[in-house]
Amino acid sequence: MAPEVFAEIDPPQRLLMGPGPVNAHPRVLRAMSADLLGQFDPEMTAYMNEVMALYRPIFGTQNQQTFLVDGTARAGIEAALVSLVAPGQTVLVVDFGRFGLLLGEILARIGARIETVSAPWGQVVELDAIEDALKRVRPSLVATIHGDTSTTMAQPLEGFGALCRKYGALSYVDATATIGGMELAADRWAVDVVSGGLQKCLGGPSGSAPITLSEAAAERIFARRHVERGIVRDDLDDGEGPRIGSNYFDLAMVMDYWSDKRLNHHTEATTMLYGARECARIVLQEGLENRCARHRAAGRAVTAGARALGLEVFGDHRHRMSNVTGLVIPAGVDGEAVRRRMREDFQIEIGSAFGPLQGRLWRIGAMGYNAAKHKVLITLGALETVLRAEGFAAPAGVAVEAALAAWNAELSA
Amino acid sequence: MAPEVFAEIDPPQRLLMGPGPVNAHPRVLRAMSADLLGQFDPEMTAYMNEVMALYRPIFGTQNQQTFLVDGTARAGIEAALVSLVAPGQTVLVVDFGRFGLLLGEILARIGARIETVSAPWGQVVELDAIEDALKRVRPSLVATIHGDTSTTMAQPLEGFGALCRKYGALSYVDATATIGGMELAADRWAVDVVSGGLQKCLGGPSGSAPITLSEAAAERIFARRHVERGIVRDDLDDGEGPRIGSNYFDLAMVMDYWSDKRLNHHTEATTMLYGARECARIVLQEGLENRCARHRAAGRAVTAGARALGLEVFGDHRHRMSNVTGLVIPAGVDGEAVRRRMREDFQIEIGSAFGPLQGRLWRIGAMGYNAAKHKVLITLGALETVLRAEGFAAPAGVAVEAALAAWNAELSA
Repeated sequence: MAPEVFAEIDPPQRLLMGPGPVNAHPRVLRAMSADLLGQFDPEMTAYMNEVMALYRPIFGTQNQQTFLVDGTARAGIEAALVSLVAPGQTVLVVDFGRFGLLLGEILARIGARIETVSAPWGQVVELDAIEDALKRVRPSLVATIHGDTSTTMAQPLEGFGALCRKYGALSYVDATATIGGMELAADRWAVDVVSGGLQKCLGGPSGSAPITLSEAAAERIFARRHVERGIVRDDLDDGEGPRIGSNYFDLAMVMDYWSDKRLNHHTEATTMLYGARECARIVLQEGLENRCARHRAAGRAVTAGARALGLEVFGDHRHRMSNVTGLVIPAGVDGEAVRRRMREDFQIEIGSAFGPLQGRLWRIGAMGYNAAKHKVLITLGALETVLRAEGFAAPAGVAVEAALAAWNAELSA
Repeated sequence: MAPEVFAEIDPPQRLLMGPGPVNAHPRVLRAMSADLLGQFDPEMTAYMNEVMALYRPIFGTQNQQTFLVDGTARAGIEAALVSLVAPGQTVLVVDFGRFGLLLGEILARIGARIETVSAPWGQVVELDAIEDALKRVRPSLVATIHGDTSTTMAQPLEGFGALCRKYGALSYVDATATIGGMELAADRWAVDVVSGGLQKCLGGPSGSAPITLSEAAAERIFARRHVERGIVRDDLDDGEGPRIGSNYFDLAMVMDYWSDKRLNHHTEATTMLYGARECARIVLQEGLENRCARHRAAGRAVTAGARALGLEVFGDHRHRMSNVTGLVIPAGVDGEAVRRRMREDFQIEIGSAFGPLQGRLWRIGAMGYNAAKHKVLITLGALETVLRAEGFAAPAGVAVEAALAAWNAELSA
């Protein structure tokens, strides 16, 4: 019997207003339909070099080592940590949500000694608390999340990298949920390594992780260089440091691949690279400041609209992410029933929450191509209807107007 | 100064007749332009289930655990090995080329005890030699490459898995270079784990690694289950075994993600999944037997044409891959000059070689969408012109005819 082949691809056109993934910009998807190139074709390596150049301003850096890891955002995190941290080394984790826990989880598997400085979900960690921990722990690396979508909080990073350097530590920031939507300033923050993903504010599909590394970080990693036996070359000396625990995530080899040395490591995911390149072009054509302002306007509009509906906005208001907003599910309302009606009646996806916030929050994202005035307004209008259908007395007609006013106030300010 | 954004994507239309990547089937690229879905959207999880069903016949298996690893083919290899092998366990590596060395390289980083049974580049390893090693070494896993593009050899696998089981070992096969082009028979071979990639005979872009695992392999991995703290659930018990050394490649969590449990691990690379799904649909619509026959015809045609040009075909002829053919560079001919003229004058890419074969071979692939009669003929015609331009006395007009005759003989047989 012939195996079933199913129908051609034809997903429903959902409006993805959750914490990500969001709808990709159509230009990104079109760029991904370009024909493939051989991995060492001069046209391909030229595209790789352009990708490096395009992501430097997005990370706010001049770092030479700025490239893509072939995997989802989580692959970028693990590549950074497994390459930077040898077993037994001490790492200070700044933990204020699920993704802080993830850093610890990955580091435990690497065999790092993990120390943590935490804040409750919905708050961020004070720089003073980080400094106290640095003094006490003397880590070789400090790792933090920038925007943790699980709590919708954004850790302030002004002064963060410089503080780590003061105590002799390198620093790592996971910017998956903020890259392309909130300012990244790797050089000004003096942060050593920042990684991200395409599927949130960059407006692309999941599956490629942009990353940038300072010279100090690259040096630490090259000290652990160990080229595969099958492709050993005279011009690449192995380092003295302990071998990196992963081949795929060995950023020494990946950096050699992205350099003029063109070491033959993995086969670059060409189509994802085309997509990542187009995401970056769109960001830079819009301009980073305009783009951050647009995300800020979207966040203000969601917040204003939600409050007009009578909903409480979650978390420490001084440190909320602009691009994902947590709304407290009112007592007596079935959060999953609301999400289902949003999806089935309006083709709009909004997010639920994890861990201690599970069942307590909805999360509304307005990111990348979806950080658009009309999409925020449509979402709030739909939410108003759905809330009333689920028995919550949302006032009629005020949320959309409040959101529109907030959007306009922000962008004309 | 505004950062440079470069031009829109517009790669030259190369004909990729090297060892991969090759040109993707246009249907695959078009499928990848479909709009995104949320990762737990019922339409998305339905696509995930379809992908599982589509890849079972391609792997020749009924294994429930058949899914995608989000990364290039090498990510699939590392995910399999790091999940199957704990530090200190003994693995027997069947090594007959660069990718056999890669298996050892990855295993060394995992901390495995590695034993090797080798053949010189251009040969394969006899089953008897594997049995001798099994008796001597008593490994917990035997790992091999199916088709090693570095040497163009295909390891025979009839009886391989059963032999491993006889000595209490699980077995792993890397089928990156053969999946969708040469027969895979995971169940008949009694092999426990097989992984692949899209960018060769499946006719897709690099960046997604299909994998299948037997119940025994899944059991061994679930014994090492350790769910992340941020997403712990009552219905997922941790195993007793040592924690898997990678979070991203933890196939226990990835299997829980692809099951009805829908554990929130990474954010599935949706666009790559659409592409992987379309690759599989195309393969099954053509039919596996027809597809293997087409790749065989292409390989016979390349071989016949190359010999008619006066070139020597590399390797043990009983065990050559059908989809990649090694041609010995004749004395006095500059191999790289030939490749450059092929690219610049004909927009055709053919491959060079690695390690001990560097500078000694060209490698011509005819895979997936490019395992087509006219593409093989065009390539041989171009090679004839280029060889003469580089001073090699290739006879005029005979290679294309010989290739055409070989193609027709194979497909009418």
